[in-house]
Amino acid sequence: MPAGEFRHPSPPPPPPGSEEEERWVWAQIKAEARRDAEAEPALASYLYSTILSHSSLERSLSFHLGNKLCSSTLLSTLLYDLFLNIFSTDATLRSATVADLRAARFRDPACVSFSHCLLNYKGFLACQAHRVAHKLWTQSRRPLALALQSRISDVFSVDIHPAAKIGKGILFDHATGVVVGETAVIGNNVSILHHVTLGGTGKSGGDRHPKIGDGVLIGAGATILGNIKIGDGAKIGAGSVVLIDVPPRTTAILILCSVILLLNRALTILFGV
Amino acid sequence: MPAGEFRHPSPPPPPPGSEEEERWVWAQIKAEARRDAEAEPALASYLYSTILSHSSLERSLSFHLGNKLCSSTLLSTLLYDLFLNIFSTDATLRSATVADLRAARFRDPACVSFSHCLLNYKGFLACQAHRVAHKLWTQSRRPLALALQSRISDVFSVDIHPAAKIGKGILFDHATGVVVGETAVIGNNVSILHHVTLGGTGKSGGDRHPKIGDGVLIGAGATILGNIKIGDGAKIGAGSVVLIDVPPRTTAILILCSVILLLNRALTILFGV
Amino acid sequence: MPAGEFRHPSPPPPPPGSEEEERWVWAQIKAEARRDAEAEPALASYLYSTILSHSSLERSLSFHLGNKLCSSTLLSTLLYDLFLNIFSTDATLRSATVADLRAARFRDPACVSFSHCLLNYKGFLACQAHRVAHKLWTQSRRPLALALQSRISDVFSVDIHPAAKIGKGILFDHATGVVVGETAVIGNNVSILHHVTLGGTGKSGGDRHPKIGDGVLIGAGATILGNIKIGDGAKIGAGSVVLIDVPPRTTAILILCSVILLLNRALTILFGV
Amino acid sequence: MPAGEFRHPSPPPPPPGSEEEERWVWAQIKAEARRDAEAEPALASYLYSTILSHSSLERSLSFHLGNKLCSSTLLSTLLYDLFLNIFSTDATLRSATVADLRAARFRDPACVSFSHCLLNYKGFLACQAHRVAHKLWTQSRRPLALALQSRISDVFSVDIHPAAKIGKGILFDHATGVVVGETAVIGNNVSILHHVTLGGTGKSGGDRHPKIGDGVLIGAGATILGNIKIGDGAKIGAGSVVLIDVPPRTTAILILCSVILLLNRALTILFGV
Amino acid sequence: MPAGEFRHPSPPPPPPGSEEEERWVWAQIKAEARRDAEAEPALASYLYSTILSHSSLERSLSFHLGNKLCSSTLLSTLLYDLFLNIFSTDATLRSATVADLRAARFRDPACVSFSHCLLNYKGFLACQAHRVAHKLWTQSRRPLALALQSRISDVFSVDIHPAAKIGKGILFDHATGVVVGETAVIGNNVSILHHVTLGGTGKSGGDRHPKIGDGVLIGAGATILGNIKIGDGAKIGAGSVVLIDVPPRTTAILILCSVILLLNRALTILFGV
Amino acid sequence: MPAGEFRHPSPPPPPPGSEEEERWVWAQIKAEARRDAEAEPALASYLYSTILSHSSLERSLSFHLGNKLCSSTLLSTLLYDLFLNIFSTDATLRSATVADLRAARFRDPACVSFSHCLLNYKGFLACQAHRVAHKLWTQSRRPLALALQSRISDVFSVDIHPAAKIGKGILFDHATGVVVGETAVIGNNVSILHHVTLGGTGKSGGDRHPKIGDGVLIGAGATILGNIKIGDGAKIGAGSVVLIDVPPRTTAILILCSVILLLNRALTILFGV
Repeated sequence: MPAGEFRHPSPPPPPPGSEEEERWVWAQIKAEARRDAEAEPALASYLYSTILSHSSLERSLSFHLGNKLCSSTLLSTLLYDLFLNIFSTDATLRSATVADLRAARFRDPACVSFSHCLLNYKGFLACQAHRVAHKLWTQSRRPLALALQSRISDVFSVDIHPAAKIGKGILFDHATGVVVGETAVIGNNVSILHHVTLGGTGKSGGDRHPKIGDGVLIGAGATILGNIKIGDGAKIGAGSVVLIDVPPRTTAILILCSVILLLNRALTILFGV
Repeated sequence: MPAGEFRHPSPPPPPPGSEEEERWVWAQIKAEARRDAEAEPALASYLYSTILSHSSLERSLSFHLGNKLCSSTLLSTLLYDLFLNIFSTDATLRSATVADLRAARFRDPACVSFSHCLLNYKGFLACQAHRVAHKLWTQSRRPLALALQSRISDVFSVDIHPAAKIGKGILFDHATGVVVGETAVIGNNVSILHHVTLGGTGKSGGDRHPKIGDGVLIGAGATILGNIKIGDGAKIGAGSVVLIDVPPRTTAILILCSVILLLNRALTILFGV
Repeated sequence: MPAGEFRHPSPPPPPPGSEEEERWVWAQIKAEARRDAEAEPALASYLYSTILSHSSLERSLSFHLGNKLCSSTLLSTLLYDLFLNIFSTDATLRSATVADLRAARFRDPACVSFSHCLLNYKGFLACQAHRVAHKLWTQSRRPLALALQSRISDVFSVDIHPAAKIGKGILFDHATGVVVGETAVIGNNVSILHHVTLGGTGKSGGDRHPKIGDGVLIGAGATILGNIKIGDGAKIGAGSVVLIDVPPRTTAILILCSVILLLNRALTILFGV
Repeated sequence: MPAGEFRHPSPPPPPPGSEEEERWVWAQIKAEARRDAEAEPALASYLYSTILSHSSLERSLSFHLGNKLCSSTLLSTLLYDLFLNIFSTDATLRSATVADLRAARFRDPACVSFSHCLLNYKGFLACQAHRVAHKLWTQSRRPLALALQSRISDVFSVDIHPAAKIGKGILFDHATGVVVGETAVIGNNVSILHHVTLGGTGKSGGDRHPKIGDGVLIGAGATILGNIKIGDGAKIGAGSVVLIDVPPRTTAILILCSVILLLNRALTILFGV
Repeated sequence: MPAGEFRHPSPPPPPPGSEEEERWVWAQIKAEARRDAEAEPALASYLYSTILSHSSLERSLSFHLGNKLCSSTLLSTLLYDLFLNIFSTDATLRSATVADLRAARFRDPACVSFSHCLLNYKGFLACQAHRVAHKLWTQSRRPLALALQSRISDVFSVDIHPAAKIGKGILFDHATGVVVGETAVIGNNVSILHHVTLGGTGKSGGDRHPKIGDGVLIGAGATILGNIKIGDGAKIGAGSVVLIDVPPRTTAILILCSVILLLNRALTILFGV
Repeated sequence: MPAGEFRHPSPPPPPPGSEEEERWVWAQIKAEARRDAEAEPALASYLYSTILSHSSLERSLSFHLGNKLCSSTLLSTLLYDLFLNIFSTDATLRSATVADLRAARFRDPACVSFSHCLLNYKGFLACQAHRVAHKLWTQSRRPLALALQSRISDVFSVDIHPAAKIGKGILFDHATGVVVGETAVIGNNVSILHHVTLGGTGKSGGDRHPKIGDGVLIGAGATILGNIKIGDGAKIGAGSVVLIDVPPRTTAILILCSVILLLNRALTILFGV
């Protein structure tokens, strides 16, 4: 069996959200990392420092995020401490992390294992760091929340305002260029591709960003603007610009990008920079 | 009052561009940082090293940019020295910095303070670093200017050719993915969202990029290609592809993205990667 | 002659792909770096460490990539060793590198020299690192290949699945936000601008990404989805969303983005976030 | 009052070893750091990150040691975690730390404050890190204990075998070059100057290093070899070589270095390297 | 069996200096590291990156030295490359390394395993790095050799002039403060404790440093000055100052430090700084 | 001519202390570095970053010290700024630096060039950093001065109290383990070997450290204790312990280490640790 492939062990996984699931997922991650460390000595040091030397998922995640997001003026120890403290004391965050790992593992065909997501998915990592920033925001620790947002944007090219509310089971796939505004709300089990914007419409303040329902799928490069509702289960096509509400649970979607053009003259000037 | 909020002090700020404004803005920034350091000990070290330990805005900015843009082969001390030397000797750059800080503070509802912009806005930081690269370019120090462009693109995902000319009072909001070509010109008080391209059209050289007038607003993901003019005060919608001139001071804009599609069949294949 | 400009020396360069070409390009790069180091002392240390201290192109490239892609948990020495080992033993990779350098130098008017591309083009660097990740993938060293993909995505904002097959003479221009899926194939002499997606359509696995022919040009922000063919020499306009095959060697292209809108009311809500 | 000077506050400090003392010393340290940060903005960031951002002495010390002793292969987060875990769960170590701070503050005339010792005394820091290494040794975590010893020796030039037993209230003054062997024992309230060796005599194993009583003072460069006893309160002169027991509580000491030489001929060859 | 303890495997080790010995020692080191990584997850990452991910002793050693001796201006990749290149092409150096490992393992009772010495003994590491500096010196690459000497002195507090000639099977125990001058020569199987100086006598140049025979033992803090001979097998006591030849193979030694002093008055002024 | 060797150019150097000397020494250093960079590409990057990219000796020195002494909590840019500011505004410090460079170059036979000393001599570098710490001390910026002392002691194993007064033309040779107390004074043109202590005698404060006259030479490991005078031109033998005044300009010296011992029995126990 090639390294990197993942096979479900015989006993079925615990039900999603149950207490045993967190332990089960962490056990899976350690088993995957152990197998990969054995198969690839060049990666073993990395796998031990990020996963195998830790006693829990929140420690591993806090360590990994601290090292990814630190800078010469925001030290890794400070961030590690901050993340660990918040993940350790908030079971809701930990269960959201597990739901996000499931989302990547079972909804993205390119995701070969839980540890693949934990280590390598910048969308996953940006989302977990956002949850901490959001928690800080709700505690009125805003300068720290904003500093975290800035680091996430520098490192992962994912810019989520710490006030934005995000549900569980989220898949930010590829994630580069995602922008989520201050008053945006994202439901549960949402999949969002790269370059997606949940933006405002230039109003000077107040509630001005989209509300995304449960189970929504938003394609690459879609731009959704204003305080509008994307109903549960809706699908937004890649490259769409959406300015009005989309009804819940419809497969039809609203886009502002269409029509086939075959005008040679006009198109020959479209290329390059 | 929650940390991170900013209230205007009683006396009105000095007129924009006046000599006192630079001192006033710097005094505001220090006051904000002092308040935040007191409220949030975990951030105090960061605020002292980036703002409170410095005697002027250009020193603070040079330090912050040097630490953000350095790498193992381009040391922070070298970059700090370079930035400080250029900001110290060119009052025009300093006044552009102040105008950019005002632009973010007063045009972006999510911007809670001047220090928020100085510390956290990658669009602001990329723009200041570009101004230095542009200055080097005009001094025929091109390899250094290009190295700087490359670091800005790596760190902030903002790719501005050092030859591009950019006015004052610029807001690059979110900024990830912005690309500005070699012969592009951007006027004063322009707002540019993320993923915006001011690109060429594949011609082999010469003047081949857009000229953006004063007060223009360019929405997220807009692509403006070729040596065309976007008139003063024009607004370009999010996701637009613009290939021809847009008249000055019009609210109407030209886009190549439109029409509502409700064809279920076609759209079900638009999602994901 | 201003620093940074490049003049072809009198003798014509060796034929592309010939054995002498690699040596010739490396000699050019060293000559350029030597000239720039002399003209710009502030950059000399950088040029010596990345280019002039090395005895071959693959050593210089391995050093540069190792330093760019390393992190606190994936050390530069480990990556340097990995890159050098693979580039040294695979002449095909080295010849692809040279073809990519030619592509940037002669197809991008903003590229002033080979060393400019080698040092500064994140698209070039991401592509070379991808070739190593792809090689690891074909050797079933998948966890390492995926770790490399993740670092390339973090550092360059370019996300190419290590299984994707990419030809020679590739120009990823600006490159921020490029996403290339697992079963995508890219031919030779292809130019791809920033924000381009070669994505899937949400199918749960299998061959689900585009196949790009030789000599294709894909404009900024184009989104190409599904297991479709873009024929040799085709051109895809900026901002296009492409869902069906494009015939080979046609100048006509298929896009889903069009029509001119001048409705003031609709457009005033399109701006900002 | 000049910065850096320390005045005892009016209420007398709590009795040594009492429960309140730890809190009192920590309060002193924070007050000193706050005063210094105010007087010296260039140092404020350092003082906040090492002292003022922490909620307890053990957190501050763990952070400081983690950053001092880390390397590219032993990350600061790992060490921070290790130190914090051990200091948090072992009150004996914490009380020894406080006793050592008192020892420096009240026995070394050059020590101007508790924070001066905490931040700057490599002898103090090496001793605290040794206590952690010793604890690991007693838990049979020997490879980690030895790795810590090695880092302490690299960073502080203080080489204490993790098996060595060291009491409370220890002052390692200047500390460079101190060597303490595996079976050495050091009592309470001992002062040891730099270049002091508590070494073996070449025997192949077993109990082979000195036992130092309470309140002993060992001068700079003294070399004490073999399983001998230095009695309580004894004083060993600088440069001494001691090979036999020294009686307890005597002011007389045994040395092997003596006699005044005024032979010009012999001494003219003693200088330089 | 407690972690960190080492038991000889049943088959006797290959004869010293034989070709198989290098392989045997490397196999021992890997086995030790594997055992320790299993017993101590916190150290596993370190053990994998420094030992277990490498295919040979010279790769492991070059990696370890490169990371220890690098600085912000002398990068680890450069040093790694330099060390690996020299160790790979010079079998004499490799065999000296193995002999030094044996020396520590079998002559120092505190050395619990080969890997303990390879990872943690700064005297061992300084000596290996010196061998490389010496090789560079003999190749007239003097500035690089001197830069290496400087790094070794900064990092390990061991200052050996690159021109000094050092044999095999050397044990620098503890090592802090060792100084070896330009024209010094050290034979085989020599043990040198910390603070030992092999210095000159102030002459203005030429052959002015000691020549140490085979099997000599020099105690802590001994100072040996001038172009004198210490005969094979001689022993120099701790703290000695030696200015004249010591006959070969004698157990008697010459020192300039002696006599027992019991004068209370004189000695009470000897303590502290 | 082998790299690393230095020949005096034809015109004689300017008189010591003259205004032209500083320029002349800096020109020599640049010429040496240029020659070495050409001969040794592996070192060129280092030589450009530390010497050749700088416009003056004080910039080069400030850069080098900033990079050597920085830590994760005391950033290189902060230290660079501090050093540059003080060296730029105090001509006395700059002239002392030049005198120290001369001292190493002409009094140490192992010193092959001015740049050898500037780059590699930790005694020289520690002394220059001490002068800055001393200046800060006299300005009552004591916490910063003490932090600097601590970094010098960590990095160079040289511990000089910032209050100690040191003249010009000082050679700290090898330097490891040098300790200089708070009230010590060192005259001009003094040479001090490694492990030398200018310490106190345990008194609780006040003027308690040695006063060293001009032109004194102190051998390796000498320990000089108490408020005593070492007269101009005196020589202190290696390993001496000096407790009383030494008359000026005598070649005779006072030591407390003497007599030849040939007692086999006693000495066989002197070895090892």
